[in-house]
Amino acid sequence: MIKIAIMGLGTVGTGVAKVVAENAKQIEQKLGEGLEVKAILVRHFKDGPYRQLMTDDFEKIVSDPEIRVVVETIGGTGSAYEYTKRALEAGKHVVTANKQLVAEKGCELLALAAKKKVSYLFEASVGGGIPVLHPLKECLAANRIEEIYGILNGTTNYILTRMVTTGAFFSDALREAQTKGYAEADPTADVEGIDAGRKTCILADLAFGHQVKPESVPMEGISKLSLRDVKIAERAGYRIKLLGRTVRMPGGGRSAYVAPHLIPEENPLAHVEDVFNAVVVRGNATGEVMFYGKGAGEMPTASACVSDVMEAVTSRSSTGWSADDSGFVDPRELHTRFYIRIEGSLTDAAMSFGQVEVLSEDGETAFLTDRISGYDAMEKSTGLNVLACMRVLA
Amino acid sequence: MIKIAIMGLGTVGTGVAKVVAENAKQIEQKLGEGLEVKAILVRHFKDGPYRQLMTDDFEKIVSDPEIRVVVETIGGTGSAYEYTKRALEAGKHVVTANKQLVAEKGCELLALAAKKKVSYLFEASVGGGIPVLHPLKECLAANRIEEIYGILNGTTNYILTRMVTTGAFFSDALREAQTKGYAEADPTADVEGIDAGRKTCILADLAFGHQVKPESVPMEGISKLSLRDVKIAERAGYRIKLLGRTVRMPGGGRSAYVAPHLIPEENPLAHVEDVFNAVVVRGNATGEVMFYGKGAGEMPTASACVSDVMEAVTSRSSTGWSADDSGFVDPRELHTRFYIRIEGSLTDAAMSFGQVEVLSEDGETAFLTDRISGYDAMEKSTGLNVLACMRVLA
Repeated sequence: MIKIAIMGLGTVGTGVAKVVAENAKQIEQKLGEGLEVKAILVRHFKDGPYRQLMTDDFEKIVSDPEIRVVVETIGGTGSAYEYTKRALEAGKHVVTANKQLVAEKGCELLALAAKKKVSYLFEASVGGGIPVLHPLKECLAANRIEEIYGILNGTTNYILTRMVTTGAFFSDALREAQTKGYAEADPTADVEGIDAGRKTCILADLAFGHQVKPESVPMEGISKLSLRDVKIAERAGYRIKLLGRTVRMPGGGRSAYVAPHLIPEENPLAHVEDVFNAVVVRGNATGEVMFYGKGAGEMPTASACVSDVMEAVTSRSSTGWSADDSGFVDPRELHTRFYIRIEGSLTDAAMSFGQVEVLSEDGETAFLTDRISGYDAMEKSTGLNVLACMRVLA
Repeated sequence: MIKIAIMGLGTVGTGVAKVVAENAKQIEQKLGEGLEVKAILVRHFKDGPYRQLMTDDFEKIVSDPEIRVVVETIGGTGSAYEYTKRALEAGKHVVTANKQLVAEKGCELLALAAKKKVSYLFEASVGGGIPVLHPLKECLAANRIEEIYGILNGTTNYILTRMVTTGAFFSDALREAQTKGYAEADPTADVEGIDAGRKTCILADLAFGHQVKPESVPMEGISKLSLRDVKIAERAGYRIKLLGRTVRMPGGGRSAYVAPHLIPEENPLAHVEDVFNAVVVRGNATGEVMFYGKGAGEMPTASACVSDVMEAVTSRSSTGWSADDSGFVDPRELHTRFYIRIEGSLTDAAMSFGQVEVLSEDGETAFLTDRISGYDAMEKSTGLNVLACMRVLA
């Protein structure tokens, strides 16, 4: 019997205990032996099915030689960071869904794990139950990864879907998401793109093998998105989605950012609705491949954690991810078409941007530029009254 | 330097040599040492960049202790089968894209590989460059897989896309696919669902851990598909796609088949166009996840082979796949809604099927049934002049 501990008994932690129990037969079949939760670290004891397993003493877990894997579902970078380090130092594998910790300290924790010859695995941190990180590292290993972009946050995608399909304003759609439990009381990390930004960092780290620091990644959310742009974009054959994106730059650098984008309707990402997530990886040999599914939720995320537990106790190769973060390029250097809406006429637009593709003209003018850099877009917008500005996904 | 051999220098074999050369830097970075093609087995020598590496003598490859991995891209179950067995017996890892061989002999070859403590890997056999098999085995390992279905053949999907978007007849769309190089001169294996059927078997084998024999899987292609049904389906909000599908049955059995299906427009599969493939895996914890990309082509398929080569020389766990094929259930026992078009009136339809959802009525009647088994659909159709009958994807 392989024994594990869970740290934290929130949504994901509870899900891990459930998956281990419900799928015990499948898991034992694949591992050749059973999997058992021996201890669950909590701050406050509470009644329920796991009462017997609860402890509020981390020392009991870290010093128990029977516990081979620790699943960290505490979240944040406080005690989660401390306990992860100590568990790895004690020679235990650590599995997590904690994207903040992985984005900020993943490189350091992976190095510690390698030193101790154990695994630090975090498939659940990006895309919840959707397999993304393993396929990226393993199945696409023979590719030079050129770009990754995706809908990485279900809350914002739900809000955007409501805005498009029912014509709801952002604030109303947000309230609806909160009522349904898709958005938290304080929705800042979701709607301002911070959650998507952390996931973008993790994708960039693994794709390019260099640390991408969250603080160097510009993160723009959807709180300022206007229903008007949603409608103009739709009439022109585009959907607006919040994308995290990371790109290999000519010369070997890399860039990353989060921002709303216009997506052409024929792109499969345009049809990713509600709380679903989708990640597109572009490799130089394989072209674009997309991974799609529910990016959050108790059971999907928990099942990704338990799959990582199973991997940890069977075999493991190392994850190339250097702490060297040189070569990060400001995403304003990236060239794309831009959607811009101004208070003014087509003539005003043309004076600044030359020839443009007009989408709407009625006092305000909405148009698509040629492919230009973000710097160019900013510079040419000087003197114009810009009401909206977004990248178009080519 | 890690040395490999390629057997067969067709599209995929040539692609493998190209990927090894073009992505040498990335590959070396990840493996810690370089990868080199030492020999290529061909039947007839021909000029070109690989002339120096060619041999027509398999003994030279199998007896060369330097060659650690053999990539089999011969195809079929003749010499490909013989050479694979001999290479595995000689302690070499074997990697392949040969879906026919894997579907028919995979279980036996995996057992031989396990005995010899080497790997037999075939990610490229399903979905070309799209990671599907590894995520299924590893990232979704903590799930009980309930169902897998997908668009597994790019040729037929291209033909269907042309029929939908341009209103072309099957025969014209096929000719166009042949002109573009998407369909072979003899398109039987593609258009009759045989290629998709082999891939469905491999997915079923890995999902359920039991051999599913290709000869027990009913395979229906698109050669008899009528443009009329394509149009009726479209007006009713469905797209017609050729799906391979395998399902866990209550009681532990499993079923598998290939047939055209009606897909509701809001299902992401409905928007998989042209030569793209997509595979949906439904696990009891993770829900539905979809893998999407180009399912064929020289470089995507080759890059999947090279990724497998990289995996073979680093680490490996075993693939659970028992030769016990009991528990295979005839897919006519599966319950779905059916799309049926008859020569006759709504009254004729209702007499046989009770209440139905009418899609079109003009001498002929097209309708959707309730959820019924395939046996039921057949039985109730007796006495009706059935012009078309397809499952609806729920």
